[in-house]
Formats: sequence, structure tokens, C-alpha cells
Amino acid sequence: MQQAIAVLDSGVGGLTVVKELMRQLPQEKVIYFGDTARSPYGPRSAGEVRTFTRQIVEYLIQFNPKMIVIACNTATAVAIEDIRERVSIPVIGVILPGARAAIKTTRSGVIGVIGTDGTIRSNAYEYALRLISPNIQVYSEACPLLAPFVEKGLFGADSANEVVEQSLRQLIGKPIDCLILGCTHYPFLVEAISRVMGPDVTLISSADETAREISTILYHRDMLTSSGQLPIHQFFCSGEPELFKRIAQNWLKEQISITPVVWQVPNIL
Amino acid sequence: MQQAIAVLDSGVGGLTVVKELMRQLPQEKVIYFGDTARSPYGPRSAGEVRTFTRQIVEYLIQFNPKMIVIACNTATAVAIEDIRERVSIPVIGVILPGARAAIKTTRSGVIGVIGTDGTIRSNAYEYALRLISPNIQVYSEACPLLAPFVEKGLFGADSANEVVEQSLRQLIGKPIDCLILGCTHYPFLVEAISRVMGPDVTLISSADETAREISTILYHRDMLTSSGQLPIHQFFCSGEPELFKRIAQNWLKEQISITPVVWQVPNIL
Repeated sequence: MQQAIAVLDSGVGGLTVVKELMRQLPQEKVIYFGDTARSPYGPRSAGEVRTFTRQIVEYLIQFNPKMIVIACNTATAVAIEDIRERVSIPVIGVILPGARAAIKTTRSGVIGVIGTDGTIRSNAYEYALRLISPNIQVYSEACPLLAPFVEKGLFGADSANEVVEQSLRQLIGKPIDCLILGCTHYPFLVEAISRVMGPDVTLISSADETAREISTILYHRDMLTSSGQLPIHQFFCSGEPELFKRIAQNWLKEQISITPVVWQVPNIL
Repeated sequence: MQQAIAVLDSGVGGLTVVKELMRQLPQEKVIYFGDTARSPYGPRSAGEVRTFTRQIVEYLIQFNPKMIVIACNTATAVAIEDIRERVSIPVIGVILPGARAAIKTTRSGVIGVIGTDGTIRSNAYEYALRLISPNIQVYSEACPLLAPFVEKGLFGADSANEVVEQSLRQLIGKPIDCLILGCTHYPFLVEAISRVMGPDVTLISSADETAREISTILYHRDMLTSSGQLPIHQFFCSGEPELFKRIAQNWLKEQISITPVVWQVPNIL
């Protein structure tokens, strides 16, 4: 099936899923939408995030994708069921893949989760983990400062390290043996997070795990592409394209072209 | 969906999948069939393995399972398509989960695979890996002596270490960065394999990865069990039950009861 996989996020975070998709499924074409004009989604209300997600899906569906990937934990937490009701193609979120990988990884049964305010407030990870394994213990921590740092392209800065340290402080000393990076922006900060948490805590990237689950689902639905050609991916963003392009090219290690999208809908900002 | 997951193998190897199922999906009931009377499958012809697999599936289907797991790489390699045509429930093999995990893990794109004669001869891993990622390079090695060692319960013995060393000799020095344990018996020997391959080669257990994929597929088909009760698993084997029981209890760290099954079909042995 030669159609593209449509990936969306509040901004650049979903590029961590795209990078893994490009690596794990090199034949699959990706179309990406980063809603940078309205990022971050973390502090917004559930209703607002649902409206935004619906708008992006309506935009992406015109390209006739074979699958929608909500590569944003906040949007997955509050909007995935709504989107599933609206489209007839598979809709994949980033929460259950990370939950499943954490359950596979943990030996102690005690798991940490970090995410945006919206994600942590939704309890979506606790729900996903306990749906599969009722006795899992979870320590969750909202880290509202991290995604905005990544959106500004500041993930290498000293100030980023300080903010990571501060954000994770509550988790130090907790008996967790793995930590779910419950925001697709966090793999940009993985070195700092790893340094703070130490070698005994395995980090689970919801981005890497989602790419793997997409691979599983495409195979089991007989939807893998069989083209031998390398795909040309397409990128859209609603905000300033130059910063998005710089972050994307730096992260994906590839030249890309960006199509700016101006929302025709009233901007609630 | 409260029905059981039916798991089959040539002998005790599939217990590595069961152990991970019990850990990753503690609410799911398992019924297991080990065809110990006709183990090993590795040296047998594809036709013979297909016939045996079909017989076991016919036996298990009477319990009305919700899914069939072919927890044997040799049988997956040659019989999964045949079984898929015969039953209306999902049929999961152990080859693609391992392939997908290896693709997620490798950084060099060079992957090693060990398995039985039958598995390696089938080229099923090369096919699975290249279906997803055409440029993956694969080094395969048949290790026909390993599964029979495990079936005899000798996985802790010094002689097992020697046989592991000998079996893996051809892979030492190859530029692989991960090695797929392409036989569900091999996790019993993981310490010896890990010691021989060294710390730079990540071992991928097709058993662990299959349990995780089962979790994914049950969720996406809305087939996870919602019972709050701990399930009572059932075990069947076609050969001598005492050795099977000893190995199973030792591996699963649980008391189990075994129902011996005498094949009513002509035994080709």
C-alpha cells in the first residue's frame, strides 16, 4: 500500500517518531504536520486540544494517508478516541506503545512517567499501564517546561540541562527501574535526562516504540508499502517555517522542504 | 475477551514466550502444547513440521482460544500461512516480532540470526527483515545442537556452555550489533550466549518480543481480557510429562499441572 503515513504533533516533538519511522520503515512515505503556531498543547484544555487535533486530521486526510499517527502524548491522551470515530483508517497514538515497552522492560513493576501537564493530568499512562497489568505501580511527574525548550531549539543549551534537573527532582530516589518519556519532545533531551536518572533507570522513548508498533500494525493489516523506491516525505507547519526547518533538518539529518500552512479557522490563541 | 491464548511449540521452548506472556499480560489465560514426543522440529522437513503444527492447532482449537501463537521459529517459518488459512482467529508467529525488534535496536544495520536448521534453511528471518528494511545485512548461523540440549533440561551444564561456544564460533568477529535468538529454546541459554557474544552485541529474544506483539494485537483488536481474576493456565505435552513438568516449573517459577496427550494419529517418528 503506497499511501503515506500521516504524523501530527503540536510542533517539532513528533519528528522523534518520524526519525524512527524513517529508520525502522525506510520504504514508508511520511507526511508530517507540526502545529507550531499553537504549540505547546500541554497547558491547554482537553477540549481545545481535541479541536486542534481534529483540524489537523481534516487537513491531512486530503492527502489520502493510510494511517494517522498522533505523535503527541497530550493529543493522544485526550483526542484519540474522538479521531478514531471520525476516520476509517487506523489511528495510532503514542501512549500505549510506551506503556507496553515499559511493561516489557520493568523488573520491579515500578514505572516512572514524565509528560506535559495535560498528559499527566489525564492519567492516560496509569490507565494504559493498568489496563494491561493491574499491579504496576506508577510515579508520574508533569514537566511543563521541557517541551517549550525543545520548540525553541534550545535542547543543547546549559539552561536545558538545569531545567531537566529541576523537572526530574521529584523522581530521584523513587524505586522506579524505567522511565517513560511521555512526550515526543523529550528524546531531544535524552542525554540530560539519562544523566540525571542514572544508569539503573532505563529510558523508554514513546517515539521509538510507536514506530515499532506502526510496523507491527502495518504488517498485520497487510498495509506495508512494497515500493522499492525511497520515499519523499512532506512537512507542513502552521508557525514560523525557518525555525521548524532548522530543528527538523538538524534532528533528521536530512534536507527537507517545509510547506507553511495558515489556518483558515479562527485562531483561539 | 476471557478466552485463552493458545501457545504451541515442539517442546519446552515456547515456555519462554509463556513466561513473558505471564509477566507482560498477567490477566491473560494461556493454554500450552509442547510436542515433546516429536521434538526437535529443527531437522525435520517442512512438510512434516506443517503436518505436526496442523495437528496441534486442531487439538488446541477445541478449547475455543482467542488467538494461536506458534511459539516455535521452525514451525512459524514453514507453517504459519497454512495455519492462518485454516482458522478464523489471529495467528501470531515468533519471527516478525524478533525481526522488528532487531530493526529497532540495530544502529549498524548488520544483524545476526541463530536458529535451528529448519529456520535458517527457510531464510525466514532474511525475508522478514528485508520485507521491512531492504538494506539490512544478515549473518545467519544454524545451531542444531542447542534446542535438544534445552529439551533434555541440560541448559545449566558445563557441556551446554561448550556447545554454545562452538555453535556461535562463526559469528565471532562479524560486524553485527545485535543477534536474534531465532529459536524459542535459546533464552534458556542466554547467559552462555551473552558471554560468548560480548557486551557490544544486543541479544533479541523472539520470545520477549512476541509477548509484546501479542499485547499490541490484542489491544488493537479489542481482545484484551478484562477479568480481574488471576488466570489458571493449562499445559499439555505429547511426551514424557515428568521432565516437561520439571523444566516448566523451574522456568516459570510456578507449580503447574500437565495433561499428557497421546497422539491418535500415526506417529511418523
